[in-house]
Amino acid sequence: MSTLQDILQDIKPLDTRAMSEAEELQRSLIKPPGSLGELERISIRLAGITGQVRSTIKHKAIFLFGSDHGIYDEGVCSSPQDFTRKLMLAYSGSQDAGINILARQAGAELRLYDLGIKGLSHHENIITHKFMTEGTHNFRLGRAMSIETAEAAIMFGANLVRDAKREGVGLIGTGEVGMANTSPACACIMAALKSRDVSMVGRGAGLSDEAFRHKQQVILDALNLHSESLTDPVNILSCVGGLDIAAMTGVFIGGAVYRVPVIVDGVISVAGALLAYLLEPLTREYMFASHESLEPAYNHAADTIGLKPSLRMGMRLGEGTGCAVYMQIIDDALAIINGMGTFDTL
Amino acid sequence: MSTLQDILQDIKPLDTRAMSEAEELQRSLIKPPGSLGELERISIRLAGITGQVRSTIKHKAIFLFGSDHGIYDEGVCSSPQDFTRKLMLAYSGSQDAGINILARQAGAELRLYDLGIKGLSHHENIITHKFMTEGTHNFRLGRAMSIETAEAAIMFGANLVRDAKREGVGLIGTGEVGMANTSPACACIMAALKSRDVSMVGRGAGLSDEAFRHKQQVILDALNLHSESLTDPVNILSCVGGLDIAAMTGVFIGGAVYRVPVIVDGVISVAGALLAYLLEPLTREYMFASHESLEPAYNHAADTIGLKPSLRMGMRLGEGTGCAVYMQIIDDALAIINGMGTFDTL
Repeated sequence: MSTLQDILQDIKPLDTRAMSEAEELQRSLIKPPGSLGELERISIRLAGITGQVRSTIKHKAIFLFGSDHGIYDEGVCSSPQDFTRKLMLAYSGSQDAGINILARQAGAELRLYDLGIKGLSHHENIITHKFMTEGTHNFRLGRAMSIETAEAAIMFGANLVRDAKREGVGLIGTGEVGMANTSPACACIMAALKSRDVSMVGRGAGLSDEAFRHKQQVILDALNLHSESLTDPVNILSCVGGLDIAAMTGVFIGGAVYRVPVIVDGVISVAGALLAYLLEPLTREYMFASHESLEPAYNHAADTIGLKPSLRMGMRLGEGTGCAVYMQIIDDALAIINGMGTFDTL
Repeated sequence: MSTLQDILQDIKPLDTRAMSEAEELQRSLIKPPGSLGELERISIRLAGITGQVRSTIKHKAIFLFGSDHGIYDEGVCSSPQDFTRKLMLAYSGSQDAGINILARQAGAELRLYDLGIKGLSHHENIITHKFMTEGTHNFRLGRAMSIETAEAAIMFGANLVRDAKREGVGLIGTGEVGMANTSPACACIMAALKSRDVSMVGRGAGLSDEAFRHKQQVILDALNLHSESLTDPVNILSCVGGLDIAAMTGVFIGGAVYRVPVIVDGVISVAGALLAYLLEPLTREYMFASHESLEPAYNHAADTIGLKPSLRMGMRLGEGTGCAVYMQIIDDALAIINGMGTFDTL
């Protein structure tokens, strides 16, 4: 069985020949060169990923990882913890939540994974793969999960991409649900950037001023507790991460290994992207940033990776909703390179 | 027959009752309040425009105004002037240009208007309404058009919205084609903002450094020539405007008069939006900003109106391409308010 170190070795750079051809094709289309901005750059990067100058994406999927977080016990989240379970059930069909609607708008399949949601038993439409039955441990008191669990969750995410690629999935979005999960996301980003700047901590789904200051202190306490161990991405995930972030780290790695474009959503997702980037910088070439999250840590992580989100909509829902909106932009980019006329015939 | 002053009187504020109801509905949906950002705000503003809490847009149209510009003669544009005509013919069916593809992606009808394209005779799929057969005059030497022509072009744009509304069009995008038209757009914005800051001038479709400095000087010369006459939006259009910008000014006014949302595209479009806003500030409530153009004058105009574009994609093609991409976001916003489940049933 492949290990994380094995698959990291398999990551190759983009196909520069296909990218040059795509650039040349873009220059021949009826428009001033570069005038479609990101719509051009997306198509060129997709060529580098797929090796095809004109590619089509027949099947899109959004992986939505649900998990609970022990740090919830510290009072860093204003919603009942049981919302993780209730929302997962909503996504699975009891209700139309945001991601159900936006995935449908984008023509994307929504795949739900229970990585450790408290009180959620097996349910149709949800793939149950609980790494920890009750979710992670409270990382203000000790490690959120073992090193082995962190690695297993990363490999799980990477293997999802491998399997999806075999099924013909050509574009993947990353979503999550888990009460309190902006805390591990922010802690992972601060740990990865070796920062103790609490202005990176955001209010998540809406905390009072007092609860917000408390959340900042909890994250500082945790970073101090684990400071000796925050040496590499796997240890960061083990100390202050979440099962959702670990699986997403794996999806971003898998995107690069199996050459499938993967879209970054908000602050949870960008934490996974940042850890994947630190494990192997080439993973960046396979990532697309969708929207600029309102959570302040988002921009620190995105800037470090070198991602520029196209959407600035003040969104902070998670679930992969930003990815779904952005998928329509990728469709537009492919429609342009695949269908636009050239100056030759003008 | 109605005059511009008549229809400006007909502009009413948004329907605050419908907006309050839409806000309340948004608060009941399965998400932290406000977490879908612009997707929520769009739906609330649409309620204010249509008076319906849940509205649907069955028919979308992009109005693409083609016209030539006498200022071309000053060497402010690097493309052959005949590209205006050739591109208009491409849009009309000879080729798939950017807007053809992106309008199709958005499910929008493309309507083409020849307001004064040199050498273009009547053509099927193009509505011929030439205000000036050869396009505007060189505004470095005199007025671009008469006051009467400026007013007529504004009324033409406004009446297009009236007629489209009758046909059931519920969303309008604004596009243009016309070699050199970033020069009148920039001159209009600088005149409207009473600015002589040449850093607002952009490179358009791609000028050399020398040609770019020359373009800045040409715009300054023109603003100085007309400085006594740049007293109001109609005079600004007459002195340094274009037929495209004048018609767009009318479309933004028509959007507010006939209560149809109108999308701002790039720098030409935002020049029209700014002049409409100066004629009647309420027009702003009916405008939606699509993308942040790379042309520097764009942000000055958008900030003055109070528009915040959702897309940051480095686009500068025009044609209404940004509007088409943004239409999918409006669709998403309506799908959310019309279809999402509520907390009551969670």
